[in-house]
Amino acid sequence: MSVQAEPVGAQHDGFPALYAEVLRFYARQMRFLDDGAAEEWALTFTEDGMFAPPSLPEPLRGRGTLAAGVKQAKAEMAESGEVHRHVVSMVDVQANPDGSVEARSYVQVIATPRGGEPNLYMMTTCHDVLVRDGGELRVSERRVRRDDRPSA
Amino acid sequence: MSVQAEPVGAQHDGFPALYAEVLRFYARQMRFLDDGAAEEWALTFTEDGMFAPPSLPEPLRGRGTLAAGVKQAKAEMAESGEVHRHVVSMVDVQANPDGSVEARSYVQVIATPRGGEPNLYMMTTCHDVLVRDGGELRVSERRVRRDDRPSA
Amino acid sequence: MSVQAEPVGAQHDGFPALYAEVLRFYARQMRFLDDGAAEEWALTFTEDGMFAPPSLPEPLRGRGTLAAGVKQAKAEMAESGEVHRHVVSMVDVQANPDGSVEARSYVQVIATPRGGEPNLYMMTTCHDVLVRDGGELRVSERRVRRDDRPSA
Repeated sequence: MSVQAEPVGAQHDGFPALYAEVLRFYARQMRFLDDGAAEEWALTFTEDGMFAPPSLPEPLRGRGTLAAGVKQAKAEMAESGEVHRHVVSMVDVQANPDGSVEARSYVQVIATPRGGEPNLYMMTTCHDVLVRDGGELRVSERRVRRDDRPSA
Repeated sequence: MSVQAEPVGAQHDGFPALYAEVLRFYARQMRFLDDGAAEEWALTFTEDGMFAPPSLPEPLRGRGTLAAGVKQAKAEMAESGEVHRHVVSMVDVQANPDGSVEARSYVQVIATPRGGEPNLYMMTTCHDVLVRDGGELRVSERRVRRDDRPSA
Repeated sequence: MSVQAEPVGAQHDGFPALYAEVLRFYARQMRFLDDGAAEEWALTFTEDGMFAPPSLPEPLRGRGTLAAGVKQAKAEMAESGEVHRHVVSMVDVQANPDGSVEARSYVQVIATPRGGEPNLYMMTTCHDVLVRDGGELRVSERRVRRDDRPSA
């Protein structure tokens, strides 16, 4: 993506294509996460991608670390029999002059036990920096905050 | 839609238009369902459309059967005073070489009793095959799975 | 926007751009509301914008009134320690011949107390008339209905 003189607003020619691409990116990325597809999930980040979840004191960095986290979560869910779903909504997309893309969203996290009712157990906001890398959008920085810990 | 040489990815020229059309299709289709508009709902499937819901041992086939199901559900909801909403999210869209479109999504099913609080009572995943028929996208095959019955 | 001879359907050339713009509009508008950004929220309505919420006997009219409502809600939430999120989904968009845009959607309202679990406490439907004003989409009329009060 070439360097642009100014941010791309919703009425820019390239916006509809970018917006659709970002929505589909999240659909695929979160499905990888919820299915426990650790390697596919890790590839939706850049090689040195950073993920700052609210549950850890330090951000995770790099695909190996990211994949390991998903593998562990998958093993825990297999044991508990729970299915998790990350539902991304209210996606705001802004293309930066340097070619990166900032995406802000809400994320509902829903857990369903085997034979039980689904439970909306966490509401978060997500702030991503996406970059084009090998033709694909990937997350270079992700910061997540929980609504139950507004000051964290 | 003409036959294409290869699947259409997120950066294909036609993707943004297709993606927006699919999102709007679901918005309209699920509103028909939730409003109990049985005939309009049935017309969002092909004439011989197949719907495999998780609650039935055999798939439903054909518009007459599909419409009858909605009419029955509408009568039950009128009696119970509940309103149901199907919230489709995380839509992944893939155009196939044969012109059909595969769409995978998450679906929250929310029930609200008269005078009461809404309840997220089912979390499902939906896998549709959409075809262009009379100019409009329609479902030719729908397969739904419940998160509380992961092996079903 | 020039006067059009007929409504714009999902396959019209301008639809993908309009649809993406509407989705992003809601993402930004609801974030203003949930963050308590009263003036920014009011500017997403036209100067004389009308908002008919289900909780009031009469519609709110005009930006001053709309901003005052958000300021009051923000003060109440600061005291209670709750965070509210408005999650708009299932957006159907129709461009009218006069250049206005009708958008129908579902809205989940989720409240999260400090240190507690999120609660889906209201399910509503929203019917907006959007107009282009100063280059931007803005709400000229908003009508919201609660699923727990279907006849209201």
